[in-house]
Amino acid sequence: MIKVGIVGGTGYTGVELLRILVNHPSVELKVITSRSEEGVRVDDMYPNLRGFTDLQFTVPDSDALGECDVVFFATPHGVAHALAEEVINSGARVVDLSADFRIRDIATWEKWYGQKHGAPGILPEAVYGLPEVYRDAIRDARLVAAPGCYPTSVELGLIPLVEKGLITDQLLIADCKTGVSGAGRGAKVGSLFAETADSLMAYGTSGHRHLPEIRQELALAAGGKDINITFTPHLTPMIRGILSTLYVQIPGQNIEDLQAIYEARYANEPFVDVMPPGSQPATRSVKGSNVCRLALHYHEDTGQVIVLSVIDNLVKGSSGQAVQCMNIMFGLEEDMGLKHVALLP
Amino acid sequence: MIKVGIVGGTGYTGVELLRILVNHPSVELKVITSRSEEGVRVDDMYPNLRGFTDLQFTVPDSDALGECDVVFFATPHGVAHALAEEVINSGARVVDLSADFRIRDIATWEKWYGQKHGAPGILPEAVYGLPEVYRDAIRDARLVAAPGCYPTSVELGLIPLVEKGLITDQLLIADCKTGVSGAGRGAKVGSLFAETADSLMAYGTSGHRHLPEIRQELALAAGGKDINITFTPHLTPMIRGILSTLYVQIPGQNIEDLQAIYEARYANEPFVDVMPPGSQPATRSVKGSNVCRLALHYHEDTGQVIVLSVIDNLVKGSSGQAVQCMNIMFGLEEDMGLKHVALLP
Amino acid sequence: MIKVGIVGGTGYTGVELLRILVNHPSVELKVITSRSEEGVRVDDMYPNLRGFTDLQFTVPDSDALGECDVVFFATPHGVAHALAEEVINSGARVVDLSADFRIRDIATWEKWYGQKHGAPGILPEAVYGLPEVYRDAIRDARLVAAPGCYPTSVELGLIPLVEKGLITDQLLIADCKTGVSGAGRGAKVGSLFAETADSLMAYGTSGHRHLPEIRQELALAAGGKDINITFTPHLTPMIRGILSTLYVQIPGQNIEDLQAIYEARYANEPFVDVMPPGSQPATRSVKGSNVCRLALHYHEDTGQVIVLSVIDNLVKGSSGQAVQCMNIMFGLEEDMGLKHVALLP
Amino acid sequence: MIKVGIVGGTGYTGVELLRILVNHPSVELKVITSRSEEGVRVDDMYPNLRGFTDLQFTVPDSDALGECDVVFFATPHGVAHALAEEVINSGARVVDLSADFRIRDIATWEKWYGQKHGAPGILPEAVYGLPEVYRDAIRDARLVAAPGCYPTSVELGLIPLVEKGLITDQLLIADCKTGVSGAGRGAKVGSLFAETADSLMAYGTSGHRHLPEIRQELALAAGGKDINITFTPHLTPMIRGILSTLYVQIPGQNIEDLQAIYEARYANEPFVDVMPPGSQPATRSVKGSNVCRLALHYHEDTGQVIVLSVIDNLVKGSSGQAVQCMNIMFGLEEDMGLKHVALLP
Repeated sequence: MIKVGIVGGTGYTGVELLRILVNHPSVELKVITSRSEEGVRVDDMYPNLRGFTDLQFTVPDSDALGECDVVFFATPHGVAHALAEEVINSGARVVDLSADFRIRDIATWEKWYGQKHGAPGILPEAVYGLPEVYRDAIRDARLVAAPGCYPTSVELGLIPLVEKGLITDQLLIADCKTGVSGAGRGAKVGSLFAETADSLMAYGTSGHRHLPEIRQELALAAGGKDINITFTPHLTPMIRGILSTLYVQIPGQNIEDLQAIYEARYANEPFVDVMPPGSQPATRSVKGSNVCRLALHYHEDTGQVIVLSVIDNLVKGSSGQAVQCMNIMFGLEEDMGLKHVALLP
Repeated sequence: MIKVGIVGGTGYTGVELLRILVNHPSVELKVITSRSEEGVRVDDMYPNLRGFTDLQFTVPDSDALGECDVVFFATPHGVAHALAEEVINSGARVVDLSADFRIRDIATWEKWYGQKHGAPGILPEAVYGLPEVYRDAIRDARLVAAPGCYPTSVELGLIPLVEKGLITDQLLIADCKTGVSGAGRGAKVGSLFAETADSLMAYGTSGHRHLPEIRQELALAAGGKDINITFTPHLTPMIRGILSTLYVQIPGQNIEDLQAIYEARYANEPFVDVMPPGSQPATRSVKGSNVCRLALHYHEDTGQVIVLSVIDNLVKGSSGQAVQCMNIMFGLEEDMGLKHVALLP
Repeated sequence: MIKVGIVGGTGYTGVELLRILVNHPSVELKVITSRSEEGVRVDDMYPNLRGFTDLQFTVPDSDALGECDVVFFATPHGVAHALAEEVINSGARVVDLSADFRIRDIATWEKWYGQKHGAPGILPEAVYGLPEVYRDAIRDARLVAAPGCYPTSVELGLIPLVEKGLITDQLLIADCKTGVSGAGRGAKVGSLFAETADSLMAYGTSGHRHLPEIRQELALAAGGKDINITFTPHLTPMIRGILSTLYVQIPGQNIEDLQAIYEARYANEPFVDVMPPGSQPATRSVKGSNVCRLALHYHEDTGQVIVLSVIDNLVKGSSGQAVQCMNIMFGLEEDMGLKHVALLP
Repeated sequence: MIKVGIVGGTGYTGVELLRILVNHPSVELKVITSRSEEGVRVDDMYPNLRGFTDLQFTVPDSDALGECDVVFFATPHGVAHALAEEVINSGARVVDLSADFRIRDIATWEKWYGQKHGAPGILPEAVYGLPEVYRDAIRDARLVAAPGCYPTSVELGLIPLVEKGLITDQLLIADCKTGVSGAGRGAKVGSLFAETADSLMAYGTSGHRHLPEIRQELALAAGGKDINITFTPHLTPMIRGILSTLYVQIPGQNIEDLQAIYEARYANEPFVDVMPPGSQPATRSVKGSNVCRLALHYHEDTGQVIVLSVIDNLVKGSSGQAVQCMNIMFGLEEDMGLKHVALLP
């Protein structure tokens, strides 16, 4: 059994890790930390876990965490830099669900996150936890940086085209729509039901923190070449889910060839489902599951490629993908504990 | 033109007052206060008001408020006791939308609201702002206490039976369901979209602050006799609306007589709509409107009377009813500025 | 492996059976029928099942169904009476999710469902599939009638009091709130998003088909004594979930004793969770799971007992409970394939 | 008073017309037709109208309609071609809310709508009812074709750039998100609450009927030049509202100049609100109101212009705009009866 710790388990990515891990056949949950909820039973805070765990929240303690095989950090960005380093030095491996180790360039990170990076010493060894690209490196990593939710949906949707060299100088557009859980469990007016229900809005139009992450990964997929992309997130009245509508103009293609590129790229991927061409994936088709579902459309008259990409932001966009990485790191079946069928309706 | 001030205009009852008053033909909005938003344009905070008002939030100032004909207090309970007294003494009349003056007995108020009452001197002259019961007193009042949202729906639903003496020792049940805006615009985890959407729960089962208010008014309607009532509020995933399902066991009745009692009681009320017997009022039939819609059901075998009562918690349950009171206080048509058709769908 | 067939798999209880059964370790899905969708792949209709099954819908055929060990009927009431009888006679056991075999008295069934009963010959051997009451009979049954969604939540909430003899002549009240999936996948105006979102209403106030079922089971729990109950269903804007707020007046009790009754009654039940007294169960705490969560409240001054009971109408209220029955019928662990943690948020 | 008739008043555009017209100070509602609901009181079907109208649905009758000053057609496309022609010939003016007269080229209409055009004789005189472009022609029109909902939001968002000649060969992108009421009140599985709530999806990606309408109007604004545009509608879980996110690449601009173009273009428009640059309009800021709210963003590095455009699909996107046209046609104040403040929250 793999001994698992969770740092910062009171937010949505924390409870989602718990939902997955309490049923994972090779995991033993050892410790879950929260300064503010010390002593509170986890299932008092999250009654859906009643009957599945007796754990209580404890104050973070690098010794206790160091005795785990793997520690998930489900903290806000910038909070756990130092602790992550300690934990790694104590011998546990780390999967960080925050943004702390996603950006390779420290200056870029510090610009977008508005603070000094707290663990520059271990940043170079961080592996970006997108198994579809970095599976081999994840296997041996001490530190995995689980990708952001938007970046997961956008990168999986565009990488096949980028790797094939079909993106040259076009300005790509990622028009992305998220559910409100993406804003976290913090008490913010902007996330209230009465502020977000029965309404839609864009946000972060002038620049969102997931943009440099997307740019970094697309450029790496392009062999180092910068990719132009406009990223526009939108807030929509649903709890979970991201739908990214991705636009690339590539004249002279046809849908069959494009479809073949995607099917080949993801042929062996357990969690990427390339639907038949012309499909319309709904976010509910992945609600609660670790799947990214993709569908391609092509307009011959304008050369417009449209890629539709849906994930559950809390699963493939966060906690599920983190567990997928853990499975890889410990040589387990990659889909162990992750075979949830999406809840539909 | 009636010169109007609003104290504490940043919450949902504040913006709802503005929605109504900016189109009210006899009102001139003079001042709206908020300590935290001083200098901010009202329509920057509430873009639905763009084009309807140029007002800015200012710090509360009893001189400026005293120059108004009427001042609405849309503050949380306990905040504005002293200011309300000052404003009244300056010559303006006050309609208070908070709970501060709804309870006649100071000890009861202090017990349920957990603080000393801050304006005992003016409490005795406060008139409970339910026009269907207190219209004449409202006309001349200096201080009107607008009823709570739940109490409005429950009292209008039960008072005809109580006044007729049909309630003796039965234990009444008010099973009430509200939208999330009833919890206000405060940043609370429990009001987040991801906490309240696609879910239902009861709350306040052991005792809610609207219970003593309901008991007070039912007892007054009964000529001083205590009425036994269980009040169970529920939180439901909608923005606006209250549905109160009211149960009273009165054997030996028939639906025609009961219906006649309600139709007679509310025959001249512009904002109470007694639907045909057996109807099923939906909250959306009153969304954005000042109407309370009632429907009666009767089970002859058990003597069960079921009264269904729907209101919009922010209109008839708060700001609309406050404006209705203002119309009465200033001798205007009672429905002036309040002829909104509910937004359906 | 248990060979399983599903008749009428295109509705919500059908897809929910599939969600559960494709991951059930002892089940082999053999056949799923639909006249209207013959030849269509199940995962074309329900993309959440992509990767989990290759089944196609076929026309119902009693021979093919008879080769199964168990056949689930997920058809509307009255549709499959004859076929169920044939399938049983072919040697398969049947779990019927419709209302066809829930009511023991044919005349009562025919009155409430407005048609002749189509299989009176096998009705007497039908076992009501509420494991918490009929576990032993379910074990050997050829025909199990899975309970309705409302009845499951109401009966589990009230049976401990009824069995203890605490209900005498009181008029009980079951104020029940359901999500819209309870109305099924039929194309009805009343189930449209634009008709049901952001609104609440009661329905079936004068009499709902689940009332005779509830009365039958409460009377049986009371040893044959009729129990008076008012049942008021409400339609609420969520997809899944039922919250039943149950009112019984029993003076002279205390919360500790009441709590002890419930804890004792359900001590060994894997799917009934009696929460600490005073808890407020939310439907989301059971979303996607087979759990019924109960909480008790008691008002000493009025003797009012309030039982809050939540289930997922499609799981414990339908397909999950049907699988629970199957597990019992075939000697499997009762929670096999049913260990889903509720999806929260 | 203007005598008004409505043909096909049972759908959402019909009830929305009624919501507006019952409070319109210069309108007298004379007749409302529905074959299926003949004899039913309008307020039995739409209880929000109780107290506002005594009308009953009648069978369409060109004589009765011909006595009106203006007849609104709120029928599905293709249904009322012949009747519209009769009504016009009887002397009434017509505002058609369907798609029947929006497309100038008959062949294009017949291709996209899959049927013969039923009134080619009057099509040439139809005026496209977008007051911001065709105000003068609307004034004298006998037949006004109210624009589609998506086209209204897209055209108002792009026309200033097109008219200025800033669009040359770029491929524009209109990523549009609608609420479910846009699908109408028909009983379709795809519009059920349980199918659309808590989920998102694109649809019509390969071609939607509003595309030729958008192309026609953009080309006309461009002086006849074809404009390349990709139009991708999305279905989102809200009742009302459209948010169109519009992308145009125009290098070498700056936000101040772009903003000035929009402010100048709409300076005198009562129902187009150009917000400050960088704003994020939410659909709820226009819910129930006839306003189109626009906001501009510009990325200097890529030359990306992003225009955010929100409307209520049932008001500015349909019935409100139709009434705006009526006001123009009869020389009334353009905003008469249309001064609703959006319902927020």
